[in-house]
Amino acid sequence: MEEANPGTVRPGGRTARVRAAVLRAAGDALAEQGFAHLDLADIARRADVGKTTVYRRWGTVTSLVADLLVDMAEQSLPRTETGSLLGDLKANARLVQRTLADPRQGKLFKAVIAAATCDAGTADALHRFYAIRIAEWAPCVRQAIDRGEAPEGTDPHDVIRAVSAPLYYRLLTSADPLDEATADRAAEAAVAATRAGAYRR
Amino acid sequence: MEEANPGTVRPGGRTARVRAAVLRAAGDALAEQGFAHLDLADIARRADVGKTTVYRRWGTVTSLVADLLVDMAEQSLPRTETGSLLGDLKANARLVQRTLADPRQGKLFKAVIAAATCDAGTADALHRFYAIRIAEWAPCVRQAIDRGEAPEGTDPHDVIRAVSAPLYYRLLTSADPLDEATADRAAEAAVAATRAGAYRR
Repeated sequence: MEEANPGTVRPGGRTARVRAAVLRAAGDALAEQGFAHLDLADIARRADVGKTTVYRRWGTVTSLVADLLVDMAEQSLPRTETGSLLGDLKANARLVQRTLADPRQGKLFKAVIAAATCDAGTADALHRFYAIRIAEWAPCVRQAIDRGEAPEGTDPHDVIRAVSAPLYYRLLTSADPLDEATADRAAEAAVAATRAGAYRR
Repeated sequence: MEEANPGTVRPGGRTARVRAAVLRAAGDALAEQGFAHLDLADIARRADVGKTTVYRRWGTVTSLVADLLVDMAEQSLPRTETGSLLGDLKANARLVQRTLADPRQGKLFKAVIAAATCDAGTADALHRFYAIRIAEWAPCVRQAIDRGEAPEGTDPHDVIRAVSAPLYYRLLTSADPLDEATADRAAEAAVAATRAGAYRR
């Protein structure tokens, strides 16, 4: 890691660069090897950052993965507004589909989901990640209720979860490809169930 | 493992008992420790079966887990016929929900899904397990098409997958409880989307 001239860098600049490099390396290692073989010393080497810095800042693999999930939530794209519930949910479905179909991102998500099944700290961080992403998209359902496209009392979070669920189920339980047609079908099914009142509380 | 008197046992009796004991022990170990720490010698000890027998018959942890998934598919309950699509899909949803909400079974499924993310052989076995379970329930959708409850051209497998997807998504991405209300909502949403033609090919 190159040391910048302190006078030319805004406060936090180096810290932010170190974090970005370490999180990038952690994501690469997770995508390549999965959670079981994750090792802080190896990640420090990949990131070209001192081992001591990584141990002092993150301490454990679990808290590094938790920080990676915070960063993934921060870096995720904001929701799209298309003016219709179907348009918005298709945009959401295609964003999830593109992410999971991307070789690096798909493996990274699988690795983090796998890690969460056997580590409570990672599970908490993963649950927060999805809560943030679902809250980001929920307003499109509230707008659809206001426009009269969805029944009063529809749970916006349930609708957004319904769009993602078939994509994750396909990723984890089958070898079927995650293509755009699958994404569009997930959005269409969620809209149909919403209109029929299946997500009213 | 008690040796039975050869004259009193039908052919395959001892082999079947050894398999049952080893698969039970493998399931217990998976539920308790996850896939990463699975060890054939430990499983042989838990099953009270000779280590050599386990190594000779299964060879690797991966092929033992694959055999466990074959057994889980064979042991799974046959589908329920209630006379209506909603009734059948609720029965399916509640079966999946009860399985995933059961402490041992829920942990076992999480462990196998996690293992499948980092092991191709386990992934193949897991995909076969779901293909078998989905094929078992698909006829209830075909019957619904015949009764006029679902549009012609509806893909029966898509409908059955749509029932399971929100339950697995909830299990893996949140700490929300998997209760009967969640199961019923999954079935209701799948029926609404089916009626609207969302699963027509």
